Amino acid sequence: MDDAAMQPEDSPKLRALYRGFEEQNLMPLWTQRGDLMPVHPKPQAVPHVWKWANLLPLAEASGRLVPVGRGGERRAIGLANPGLAPHAYVSPTLWAAVQYLGPKETAPEHRHSQNAFRFVVEGEGVWTVVDGDPVRMSRGDLLLTPGWRFHGHRNARDAPMAWIDGLDIPFGQQMDVGFFEFGADKVTDATPDFSRGERLWAHPGLRPLSGLENTVSSPLAAFRWTHTDRALAEQLALEEDGAPSTVAPGHAAVRYVNPTTGGDVMPTIRCEFHRLRAATETATTREVGSSVFQVFDGRGRVLLDGKPHDLEKGDLFVIPSWIAWSLQAETSFDLFRFSDAPIMERLGFARSAGED
Amino acid sequence: MDDAAMQPEDSPKLRALYRGFEEQNLMPLWTQRGDLMPVHPKPQAVPHVWKWANLLPLAEASGRLVPVGRGGERRAIGLANPGLAPHAYVSPTLWAAVQYLGPKETAPEHRHSQNAFRFVVEGEGVWTVVDGDPVRMSRGDLLLTPGWRFHGHRNARDAPMAWIDGLDIPFGQQMDVGFFEFGADKVTDATPDFSRGERLWAHPGLRPLSGLENTVSSPLAAFRWTHTDRALAEQLALEEDGAPSTVAPGHAAVRYVNPTTGGDVMPTIRCEFHRLRAATETATTREVGSSVFQVFDGRGRVLLDGKPHDLEKGDLFVIPSWIAWSLQAETSFDLFRFSDAPIMERLGFARSAGED
Amino acid sequence: MDDAAMQPEDSPKLRALYRGFEEQNLMPLWTQRGDLMPVHPKPQAVPHVWKWANLLPLAEASGRLVPVGRGGERRAIGLANPGLAPHAYVSPTLWAAVQYLGPKETAPEHRHSQNAFRFVVEGEGVWTVVDGDPVRMSRGDLLLTPGWRFHGHRNARDAPMAWIDGLDIPFGQQMDVGFFEFGADKVTDATPDFSRGERLWAHPGLRPLSGLENTVSSPLAAFRWTHTDRALAEQLALEEDGAPSTVAPGHAAVRYVNPTTGGDVMPTIRCEFHRLRAATETATTREVGSSVFQVFDGRGRVLLDGKPHDLEKGDLFVIPSWIAWSLQAETSFDLFRFSDAPIMERLGFARSAGED
Amino acid sequence: MDDAAMQPEDSPKLRALYRGFEEQNLMPLWTQRGDLMPVHPKPQAVPHVWKWANLLPLAEASGRLVPVGRGGERRAIGLANPGLAPHAYVSPTLWAAVQYLGPKETAPEHRHSQNAFRFVVEGEGVWTVVDGDPVRMSRGDLLLTPGWRFHGHRNARDAPMAWIDGLDIPFGQQMDVGFFEFGADKVTDATPDFSRGERLWAHPGLRPLSGLENTVSSPLAAFRWTHTDRALAEQLALEEDGAPSTVAPGHAAVRYVNPTTGGDVMPTIRCEFHRLRAATETATTREVGSSVFQVFDGRGRVLLDGKPHDLEKGDLFVIPSWIAWSLQAETSFDLFRFSDAPIMERLGFARSAGED
Repeated sequence: MDDAAMQPEDSPKLRALYRGFEEQNLMPLWTQRGDLMPVHPKPQAVPHVWKWANLLPLAEASGRLVPVGRGGERRAIGLANPGLAPHAYVSPTLWAAVQYLGPKETAPEHRHSQNAFRFVVEGEGVWTVVDGDPVRMSRGDLLLTPGWRFHGHRNARDAPMAWIDGLDIPFGQQMDVGFFEFGADKVTDATPDFSRGERLWAHPGLRPLSGLENTVSSPLAAFRWTHTDRALAEQLALEEDGAPSTVAPGHAAVRYVNPTTGGDVMPTIRCEFHRLRAATETATTREVGSSVFQVFDGRGRVLLDGKPHDLEKGDLFVIPSWIAWSLQAETSFDLFRFSDAPIMERLGFARSAGED
Repeated sequence: MDDAAMQPEDSPKLRALYRGFEEQNLMPLWTQRGDLMPVHPKPQAVPHVWKWANLLPLAEASGRLVPVGRGGERRAIGLANPGLAPHAYVSPTLWAAVQYLGPKETAPEHRHSQNAFRFVVEGEGVWTVVDGDPVRMSRGDLLLTPGWRFHGHRNARDAPMAWIDGLDIPFGQQMDVGFFEFGADKVTDATPDFSRGERLWAHPGLRPLSGLENTVSSPLAAFRWTHTDRALAEQLALEEDGAPSTVAPGHAAVRYVNPTTGGDVMPTIRCEFHRLRAATETATTREVGSSVFQVFDGRGRVLLDGKPHDLEKGDLFVIPSWIAWSLQAETSFDLFRFSDAPIMERLGFARSAGED
Repeated sequence: MDDAAMQPEDSPKLRALYRGFEEQNLMPLWTQRGDLMPVHPKPQAVPHVWKWANLLPLAEASGRLVPVGRGGERRAIGLANPGLAPHAYVSPTLWAAVQYLGPKETAPEHRHSQNAFRFVVEGEGVWTVVDGDPVRMSRGDLLLTPGWRFHGHRNARDAPMAWIDGLDIPFGQQMDVGFFEFGADKVTDATPDFSRGERLWAHPGLRPLSGLENTVSSPLAAFRWTHTDRALAEQLALEEDGAPSTVAPGHAAVRYVNPTTGGDVMPTIRCEFHRLRAATETATTREVGSSVFQVFDGRGRVLLDGKPHDLEKGDLFVIPSWIAWSLQAETSFDLFRFSDAPIMERLGFARSAGED
Repeated sequence: MDDAAMQPEDSPKLRALYRGFEEQNLMPLWTQRGDLMPVHPKPQAVPHVWKWANLLPLAEASGRLVPVGRGGERRAIGLANPGLAPHAYVSPTLWAAVQYLGPKETAPEHRHSQNAFRFVVEGEGVWTVVDGDPVRMSRGDLLLTPGWRFHGHRNARDAPMAWIDGLDIPFGQQMDVGFFEFGADKVTDATPDFSRGERLWAHPGLRPLSGLENTVSSPLAAFRWTHTDRALAEQLALEEDGAPSTVAPGHAAVRYVNPTTGGDVMPTIRCEFHRLRAATETATTREVGSSVFQVFDGRGRVLLDGKPHDLEKGDLFVIPSWIAWSLQAETSFDLFRFSDAPIMERLGFARSAGED
């Protein structure tokens, strides 16, 4: 039933009433109820795929034309959901961007309430320095910058490097939560293999006695590819042995977690990594909340609202709230995923549905 | 430093790059960083006061001109924040409305993911029926309709009744979380003094053994004025005796809570009631997140961003995120407050500041 | 299979080995495994009933013969489980006693780690003063003294008064957790109807803004009979209306809770009140952990390990761990219960079983 | 003030009263208050050291004289605290034993409510099979058997092996919480390097999507020495770099945790590993609750209630509740520790104090 169906009959008195509403900054529910309260989520955001083959050349061109420095702060190019123009939002909650840093370049320090991470689909040579702790960035690594920590980036090598950034900028922008502060223009040029956070926290099942207070975000800020790759390989090997291990047949997956709680790495953003055996298809599902995937390796397809999209390394796609989706692996297929699931779960809105 | 300050020099190549961005649904961060990440929250919503003396006649006129029934569902008139046009949002997260029901009228049953409450500034005679449990609505009462519970309203008397509704519609709308379902057209005509929920749960410090599972929202759906009034009066009486009891001198306040957890009544909305002694002024503060107040009794003023607004019974005002505010009581001054504080706290964005 | 069955053959070498064990303060598991790890809990404590008709005269005689004052601290007579001699433990975790205070007598202030409560089966006139807050004690009331709060008792009237005390003394004694400190010899002679804690906290669904920090034990220290009685009556009335409300047909029950969390009033002791309609029988059950009941009103029976015991007002009985029990109401039957269930639940040992 | 000080004057009436108490299974508080409620914990358990040089030969002799099998279940020799005779309790909550398994021997499967772990001070070759998952045991490893999981042990090699077991048997025995069930007589002879639990869970900061439910005890049942050693070495290396990392200067320490929660590995037992640089002394402290340490490597001393005890590899000592203690490292000094701290913390009794 649409809102037009039950509207009161037009009359001079009604028009006077509606003028009264306008003068008093009021709006009746009965003219817009269906829009405000749809039968199911009807996102303005649309499903969309960005091809790495198109993104990377534009990032490289930016490297030649656009300086990185104080003010703009980052040479980051946001994925703008076509349904959310004129905003550079990939979804109503999430921002996703390709960031590019040329040889020896530095992106200066700042901090903000927004939670951020970087994921590296290829390359190495940059260190992101979080509250003074230099964190190496290499292919397959997930690096965190939780809210309100100072951070800058520095490319220590002679080759440029590109990676993706994920943040909760749209949530913060629409919900009015954000603070921002400039930090030092320079960042340390130390290039240790492992950050101090990793040296304290990246030991499975062990917690330093100097770190017994639980923290809102993970004190471990780097999740290395070697660990992720091994965890996924072990799940598939266990499955072959007949032991329960995968989330569905042929589908290994891990969630990145805050070791102080076992929960999500940051209060608004969930990060996961998925590996499908060749020829595996996932069940079609819908979820409240939005996700972004990046293909890390292999070839396959995503079905978004029934429409197939071919995917290869580096390609990104967004799944808005309640859009049906499934994955199909042609080869062994590795995908990084991030989403706003913690928002939906913490506020009681999480819901999902299978489709037949 | 504004974004314009550090932009790359215009050139044919740069323009080609920007065209490439547009074609690929990309937007650079460096042209909009300051907007996306302000130094502190810069809400589009503005502080605003709605006078009950203006609202009520318009609600009454609606009662004469607009039928209530299936489709429009409710004769509710939303407070539209002037900064958030064209939406009927009182803040980015909250919806607030005056609802009006004529003698013997019924608003049919439905349910939705959005969390809702009613607060009654005057009158009586309506029962809101929540999942089949009729809940009397009388002056000073707070009545809950947590997400996804069927509910309808019925006026059992010969006099009309108006009250305010509070919901998280704007959050749900922008974050794509909402489901909606129609229910029965009729609602029960039972008019018990106390709902079943109250009879089970409204006993201080006692929990039924049949209700030991914690719930996301309060199973107690009616918070009666007699209890609220007594709690506030006791705080002020204890203060006179020299016992710690008030939140600040002359300022009594209670939070409505879920008795299964001691936490907020619903996962996105906090409800409180504040009572100031005559001549009391509260300290100026700013908070991340938005609040709506309604004057329940007495006379006073609110300072919003330094500007005073006189207030009397029924007046409503909104305080957007990070706007400085304080209250001044002329007489003994009673105010109901609701806010999105649970969202801010659960997602790690809560922050406040005093002002000198 | 008992331990004797599989013992190694006796020999001089074995005897030398066992001597070696003794010299080195060692004991082999194989000679005592069955005792240390029984097939199910085999408590030394036994089920037992204490008749109020026997207890009260002894308490009265104590009032004549034994002064109350510093050192002994309390004129309290502990129920000594026959299976736990020589200790005055009613169970391995719980202590239960009748305390008696003559006209105008005072029990001086002290504090201890042990958690304590009082429950009043009859009489009035004593105020227990907890951290300076005088708490009236009257028939049907539950009064808390959580660990490490100073407390004393004062009889303001010309009649003596008896009540029961419940504490976790045996747990504290065996597990070595207890601290004790003497306080003032005098206690305030104020006799307010309601304690400050009640005035702040005994408002259903409301929490003072001055008390937003969660506490380990309930800040509400008095649970009044009028509330308990009404809560139980409402459950039975709702049951008659066909609404789900009771824990089993004819069996109303409430748990006393900490309003800051909805959980148990103290970290080691659970308190409940049960009301059975006349002629109701409860299902036979067994639980890990021990309970003490006191009959508050009416007549009935308890079956303890299959053996019936007649009960009337004031009678107390203990149910050790894993002993089968059920209740039978002859008249309407009111019982107060306390137990160590929070210990069992918090440490992962809770388990129960029905019996056919 | 001792209890004798304030006793009522002896008289025939008083003696009659006390006889009445006895007949009715009652005991007055005033004759025993000081024992039941001491000024601070006064454990019957005493501080004690067991020398590995004495234990190991007795374990070996047991290997020759005592068969292992159904009934006795385990060739385990418990450390019997001299203050707790005739029980084989190392403290009121904890049991500690040396277990010994000869070449190719098997200890059959069973399960019990009691929580258990093994820690290996030297040797290798045994697999403990937990719910069908074979877990290799090697020097420095901590292996868990949380309550109610079937487990057996099998020595796959031609050499005997000894290790220590830690359980909460005394707590379970005194508090009547335990169940026990026999399992298979045989255990699998598979000898994988890594258990299935490790392959799923031993990846830092990663959680399998097939294991998102939090569990009371750790699903990771093996904590390998390579990880523990590296975590401790990193803390000391970071300290040398000037980064906050150790719990005190020269004192590195980790807690073993449940990766689903970040909390203790089991609900009653805490496990930690401590490493002191040579010549480091820890501050003297007292804690509510008891601990057992085993020296893993190096030489040093423990001061227990002011008395020094020399320590070397394998030596064990117990610190009862509220006994003052400190450690002194002669060489680099590695110690494994387990304690009942989770019991004390979950029940609100944790307390500690420094000593000057």
